[in-house]
Amino acid sequence: MQDVAIVGVGQSVFSRKCGVSIRELCFEAYTEAMEGLDITNSDIDASIICSAPEYDKQRSPSGSISEYLELTPKPTFYVESVCSSSSTGLRVAWSLIKSGLHRVVAVIGFQKMSELTSREAAERMSRGGDIIWESPFGITMPAGYAMYARAHMAKYGTTEEHLAKIRVKNASYGAKNLKATYRKEVTLEDVLGSEVIASPLKKFDCCANADGSSCIIVASGDVAKRITKIPVWIIGLGAATDTMTMSGRKLLTGLRCTQEAAKQAYGMAGVKPEDIDVAEVHDCFTIAEMMAYEDLGFAKPGEGSRLIDEKRTYIGGKIPVNVDGGLLSKGHPIGATGGSQIRTIVRQLRGQASEAQVKGAEIGLVHNIGGIGQYGNVTILRR
Amino acid sequence: MQDVAIVGVGQSVFSRKCGVSIRELCFEAYTEAMEGLDITNSDIDASIICSAPEYDKQRSPSGSISEYLELTPKPTFYVESVCSSSSTGLRVAWSLIKSGLHRVVAVIGFQKMSELTSREAAERMSRGGDIIWESPFGITMPAGYAMYARAHMAKYGTTEEHLAKIRVKNASYGAKNLKATYRKEVTLEDVLGSEVIASPLKKFDCCANADGSSCIIVASGDVAKRITKIPVWIIGLGAATDTMTMSGRKLLTGLRCTQEAAKQAYGMAGVKPEDIDVAEVHDCFTIAEMMAYEDLGFAKPGEGSRLIDEKRTYIGGKIPVNVDGGLLSKGHPIGATGGSQIRTIVRQLRGQASEAQVKGAEIGLVHNIGGIGQYGNVTILRR
Repeated sequence: MQDVAIVGVGQSVFSRKCGVSIRELCFEAYTEAMEGLDITNSDIDASIICSAPEYDKQRSPSGSISEYLELTPKPTFYVESVCSSSSTGLRVAWSLIKSGLHRVVAVIGFQKMSELTSREAAERMSRGGDIIWESPFGITMPAGYAMYARAHMAKYGTTEEHLAKIRVKNASYGAKNLKATYRKEVTLEDVLGSEVIASPLKKFDCCANADGSSCIIVASGDVAKRITKIPVWIIGLGAATDTMTMSGRKLLTGLRCTQEAAKQAYGMAGVKPEDIDVAEVHDCFTIAEMMAYEDLGFAKPGEGSRLIDEKRTYIGGKIPVNVDGGLLSKGHPIGATGGSQIRTIVRQLRGQASEAQVKGAEIGLVHNIGGIGQYGNVTILRR
Repeated sequence: MQDVAIVGVGQSVFSRKCGVSIRELCFEAYTEAMEGLDITNSDIDASIICSAPEYDKQRSPSGSISEYLELTPKPTFYVESVCSSSSTGLRVAWSLIKSGLHRVVAVIGFQKMSELTSREAAERMSRGGDIIWESPFGITMPAGYAMYARAHMAKYGTTEEHLAKIRVKNASYGAKNLKATYRKEVTLEDVLGSEVIASPLKKFDCCANADGSSCIIVASGDVAKRITKIPVWIIGLGAATDTMTMSGRKLLTGLRCTQEAAKQAYGMAGVKPEDIDVAEVHDCFTIAEMMAYEDLGFAKPGEGSRLIDEKRTYIGGKIPVNVDGGLLSKGHPIGATGGSQIRTIVRQLRGQASEAQVKGAEIGLVHNIGGIGQYGNVTILRR
């Protein structure tokens, strides 16, 4: 069977884009992804549209986006695993190509959140958790991640300062990212002094809603070599699920879905955590990045705090993480986030990341989580 | 690469199920699909949940359903192409297995529509069309299909009686289907005398909303042969898209997405329309079945009316169609419909369809449409 490569990546600016329709939003990412490729719209065999529903009015947006991008009559459909939708989309695209059904697939992620008030968006988001037993009783996203933080602190002695340091790092890189919502460095004091959202998480421990889109063009090996000089190969794919209910979880100091997905991805790629040169991890909250360090094997359980204390996840450290600013700086347009993470790693492996380049990066990892830790996706790429 | 087979099929009763949660609804279909198979939950490598969002409160239902059916920590995700969601799910499952990523995949379709009033449901449904240029101006599902009917009548002389005869046929089979919402035969007069919905379509020309679920267990060839004595092989897959806007269509007397999908499916299977022994087609409205006759090549363009006049789509005719009563009798729980059609054909090919059995059926076809003709899926199965 043919190898499968990423040949194009694109992303819109992540911000508040009130006057833009979802298809215009997707056009921005699609155009960047197609730049420099020796193909046109009619060479795209299928498109996979990734987002979380109910934030904008258009139902079944795949038809609308496919029409606008002139991708008909090729098939299009919608894939969703909330915040990890576009990583799931990439996994499906890989299968469609590997199975021989298609040769070039566009994975387009988007979210338009600004049509809703923050309160409405928070309500939608909480219904991405269990609506019978949990979300009506206050298990919102920040509340769920606050429980992880408390558990991690209780078991391992992790502190609020450790978490704040993660935001400080990510903000330092976000300041350099022209497509991020927040482009300002922050200090430890800024984070620790920000408004409490769900103790111990404060405002600067949380990522923000945003409007945005991302696009990944995936191709079979022979096509990839023909249409681009810089293919990036998909060498590891992992996906796993944990219970939707927090009360059903066996573990609260880490995410089982990450651990299982990582095991699969490392196994398929034939690499170990120490082989990864650069990683994007799902920092919807600072505690999420801390848990990812441990769940992905960059640190032993309980030792994630040392990694950030010793600045080992900065550029120049052993394993640079979220050098595009992460969700914390970029903002988190749900369906677009995974594609944005993949774009960052692809650009790193191509050596196109300018100021935030990890020198000589050959193998990169993308970690993308859906919901309050129920969907885990790990993708390993090689240049 | 391995062949891929359907090893289990299940469906809930389609009806109004107010007191049942979506996961209980899915349990009903899943249980039937797993009956008699030599595997347990833990052998399911992944689950694909198919429905249209916004009809019930649970967002990202895959996590909830996967937890309830005890399918964690295996990956799960959501696939949507409105009314053809579970056919798209089958296509994705085929790829996941064919690519070697998984060996056994459950495709679970559902829809719980009774939480909404009819008016609310109709509003949701119309937003499955283009929400900027069309649905606000009255292009609902019945209005769109009424336009197809008018175009077909104008071009080919098709009459309201021809359409009514399709409902009479489907009702005669629906009366025998224990899982259908409507289990009553109807006469030509009943259909022609029913209330006008969108002229020329009357109430009995339209399918009805329903609550329901379906489940298909798909497996790689070696596993299939081990766990069941009666695998049914997936030999043809076709999928295509037309513009979401009706005004963008080049054709109104047929569906381009069906024609394209059929061409692909016949080509992949190496069969012709005349080789099909039994078919399920997407009769959301009577005119939809009429167009399917022609788009699938069972009749020449404009000659679908002869097929029904001469009763050639009844059992005993050249190509029996919708011998389970179709959407018109069963009801149309959006995400569950494709799976229900596939279940019918699988049972036909296994010789398990009792009173409505097409004798000696070896090759069957499933035609499943999403939206007002924007997503087309054709699947060909062989025993």
